[in-house]
Amino acid sequence: MDKNRFEKQLAFILEADKEKNILRQTHLSGYTRQENDAEHAWHMAMMIYLLKEYANEEFDVAKAMMMALIHDIVEIDAGDTYAYDTNGLATQKERESKAADRIFGLLPDDQKEHLIALFEEFEEGKTPEARFAKTMDNLQPILLNDCNNGADWRAHKVNKSQVLNRQKSSQLGSEDIWEFTKELIERNVKKGNIKEDI
Amino acid sequence: MDKNRFEKQLAFILEADKEKNILRQTHLSGYTRQENDAEHAWHMAMMIYLLKEYANEEFDVAKAMMMALIHDIVEIDAGDTYAYDTNGLATQKERESKAADRIFGLLPDDQKEHLIALFEEFEEGKTPEARFAKTMDNLQPILLNDCNNGADWRAHKVNKSQVLNRQKSSQLGSEDIWEFTKELIERNVKKGNIKEDI
Repeated sequence: MDKNRFEKQLAFILEADKEKNILRQTHLSGYTRQENDAEHAWHMAMMIYLLKEYANEEFDVAKAMMMALIHDIVEIDAGDTYAYDTNGLATQKERESKAADRIFGLLPDDQKEHLIALFEEFEEGKTPEARFAKTMDNLQPILLNDCNNGADWRAHKVNKSQVLNRQKSSQLGSEDIWEFTKELIERNVKKGNIKEDI
Repeated sequence: MDKNRFEKQLAFILEADKEKNILRQTHLSGYTRQENDAEHAWHMAMMIYLLKEYANEEFDVAKAMMMALIHDIVEIDAGDTYAYDTNGLATQKERESKAADRIFGLLPDDQKEHLIALFEEFEEGKTPEARFAKTMDNLQPILLNDCNNGADWRAHKVNKSQVLNRQKSSQLGSEDIWEFTKELIERNVKKGNIKEDI
């Protein structure tokens, strides 16, 4: 064992622990409290494994799961940017790229490069792994929101077109899940949880 | 898409959300609060991917990661059993087996069988995937405890032989990480964080 290498890996693993303190806008089922990034990533990775039969294309499951597990690590420095926060979204890319350099930079060079590449691949959404991981990134919070009778949508006064726009990349990963998503959104519009567009 | 099948999968995914409320004895870095099972599993799965080079044997990474992600789901019903709680450990197997039947039973039959098999494989620790996943299950909390200057060991007045006994299965997954673990324990004995055996 190369001790210097191992210590770099442990430094990253300990730094990643801080992701457990980054809160998202989504609440857990039962609306007890906000979810954190680590919990969201855990849920997403499990969903990739369980729902892979619905992917439009074959993909490398371990790679997609790791992509899910690390896709929000940059938020340790850059913070969570809510899906419907237009000001935050404008500076998100720059903040997150700086964070990726620092945090993945704790790893040995080969793993730093590999994880930055995985993170960027996810962001770009142009490979089968990234496309399906993004579908799960979309699906996980709407499942929670739906089971809480749309409380997060209502709190943020979100429109149907905003939700559709945020969710539409799901069709690139899974046509089946995109069909389900549109039904779920429609159901929540009918209940008044998501506002009709004017 | 078979809607009945998909709904069963979603029912399991929503049930799994409750794992985010199951607290462990381990505290996060900075000792701010106790860690929950979902956070622990997220950390473990990421560690499997990052530290796989130290495994004694080649293994299927996606399988080991999924094993890590679901290994504590039974605690939704059975609760967390602290590593040094002898009374709890006596009834743990029975409580957890009942929980596995109910919770994985929410899934379609093929996935129920697959996840129960994965869970049991982890518990038995007899395959390369289970052995390395267990090494990560051991390593993750001692990294946190070590960075908190052994606060959890001190709070529970734990002996060196108890920690060694709890950690010794790590050598089956990784000789390298077992060597590191023994050094980490020794360091914490010297600091008085772990009690010397009488």
